[in-house]
Amino acid sequence: MSRSTASRALNDDTYVSARSREKVLAAARDLGYSPNQAARSLVTRRTGAIAVVLSEPEARLLDDPYRTAVMRAGYRELADVGCQMVLIFSDTREDLTRTVRFLEGGHVDGVLVFAPHRADPLPRALRLLRVPVVFGGQAADLRRGVHVVDFDNEGGARLAVQHLVSAGRRRIATIAGPQDQGAPIDRLAGWRKTLVDAGLDPADLAEEADFTLAGGARAMASLLDRVPDLDAVFVASDMMAVGALRTLSSAGRSIPDDVAMVSFDDNATLAPEMTPPLTSVHQDPREQVRAMVATLMNLLDGQEPKPRQQVLPVSLTVRESS
Amino acid sequence: MSRSTASRALNDDTYVSARSREKVLAAARDLGYSPNQAARSLVTRRTGAIAVVLSEPEARLLDDPYRTAVMRAGYRELADVGCQMVLIFSDTREDLTRTVRFLEGGHVDGVLVFAPHRADPLPRALRLLRVPVVFGGQAADLRRGVHVVDFDNEGGARLAVQHLVSAGRRRIATIAGPQDQGAPIDRLAGWRKTLVDAGLDPADLAEEADFTLAGGARAMASLLDRVPDLDAVFVASDMMAVGALRTLSSAGRSIPDDVAMVSFDDNATLAPEMTPPLTSVHQDPREQVRAMVATLMNLLDGQEPKPRQQVLPVSLTVRESS
Repeated sequence: MSRSTASRALNDDTYVSARSREKVLAAARDLGYSPNQAARSLVTRRTGAIAVVLSEPEARLLDDPYRTAVMRAGYRELADVGCQMVLIFSDTREDLTRTVRFLEGGHVDGVLVFAPHRADPLPRALRLLRVPVVFGGQAADLRRGVHVVDFDNEGGARLAVQHLVSAGRRRIATIAGPQDQGAPIDRLAGWRKTLVDAGLDPADLAEEADFTLAGGARAMASLLDRVPDLDAVFVASDMMAVGALRTLSSAGRSIPDDVAMVSFDDNATLAPEMTPPLTSVHQDPREQVRAMVATLMNLLDGQEPKPRQQVLPVSLTVRESS
Repeated sequence: MSRSTASRALNDDTYVSARSREKVLAAARDLGYSPNQAARSLVTRRTGAIAVVLSEPEARLLDDPYRTAVMRAGYRELADVGCQMVLIFSDTREDLTRTVRFLEGGHVDGVLVFAPHRADPLPRALRLLRVPVVFGGQAADLRRGVHVVDFDNEGGARLAVQHLVSAGRRRIATIAGPQDQGAPIDRLAGWRKTLVDAGLDPADLAEEADFTLAGGARAMASLLDRVPDLDAVFVASDMMAVGALRTLSSAGRSIPDDVAMVSFDDNATLAPEMTPPLTSVHQDPREQVRAMVATLMNLLDGQEPKPRQQVLPVSLTVRESS
């Protein structure tokens, strides 16, 4: 029995003799193979499923409105192209091993990955996979050889700070996000450069927090302590801005008269928490996921563009807080 | 070449002659098979991955603290037994086809399913799978032949209403959950039976809502309109209770003096939204998922207990609202 006979038999080719076919199928059955989707998928590499991997402490994932927006967008955009989303949370080193094992096991046709932490070993591990991978935002510390769809984080911060400078603000503080992640690093850089370009001194005006409401509240309190005369604050996420608003309100500071605020995300689900309504840098997770899915579909169709960083533009939505 | 030769070759048995082994492996390669995890998994049925399927409108899933608690618990409990959770949202009829195709494709070793809607076709479709399936809560309208881990919803409602009756309340209304789902049907039944047992008339005292905050607020307003002399309300979920509290507060009704309230879920993440702190029927999603994982592991270990409904007990956590 030749290799091609076996191949034709398992693929149900009618030109294979009945006897040869029977032998091959019997052997395959003994091995546990069955002419089902999984077996076929190893041939065609089309399981119909795409993994969405979120590499972050699981405690954060489901509380962060940006991450849940990504899950939602993944479900919708993949359904639109007829694919099954399989969502994977990956956090610990044990998770990493399991996740890579699953992803390289032929169970999915491609992978969308959100791995924002610089020190995350996952992105390097994923480069060895034979299935195509597209990253949402920077892929840890990888600089080349990967497909990335990111937002213009530095440009967004520039828009925010230029807006505050134009409004005559001079002591513009910032609540930065975690500086072990690409996006908050870029937002902090955009804030700093814009101040310097405007002839303003950024010294002592930055406080780092952890993207949570409580962290934003604490950072705002530290800033008020240290820089009582601050007249504006650029907050690197909506969730932290909700916390900062509470601190300012408790401290009796009026917004925007006393302190102007601009945030980042423009997340609709947090809007009811915001008094006054917040000026925010608008980025749409669904747009990012849509671009990631489009890139992945190109890769699956055998179009293999050179790995590239797509940077999606952001805009400023001006409301009452500035 | 015999069936067993092929089998031994693919399983790397050293007693197979080098030439036979080469032939088999070459044929396998031509077919796209590779001696990787996926190929082995078809033999051993151990991919290391367990699917958690949530069959509900996706718009609801990520806003519902009970569902996100289930996702979190699934991640943690499966990691504890060394398994990779793959999370699947399944809502539309197109999703159903894709989901079943993925689950029967040999990509996961087992499935945990939350499919609360009575008319959902998914549970019937899953009965045909060869991988073991355990349901969290009632499996649509399936009564037998499935493994289910549920909470004692009717018993929990009884605890809640008995507590209100003991406190001397006589006009005990309820805000029920969607009556196309098993758990809220059971909670409504528990409320009704307990009133009747206490010699109280349940007529006109029930309002149905959709498990959302806004739905709870609207239902409470309807009840106040219709039954201005109500002196207590049993609300079938914490999320609806937050809405009902807002309505009562706007209407100037004091809690518990004027209206006592008991809720269902005792969800810690919603606690900060509740003024006064709420008496609630306590159920722990993590406990449910843990029992589901234990059942699934038994099934995977070849222990095949008769399909059975496990009913986990609930308790009443008494706070200021009653």
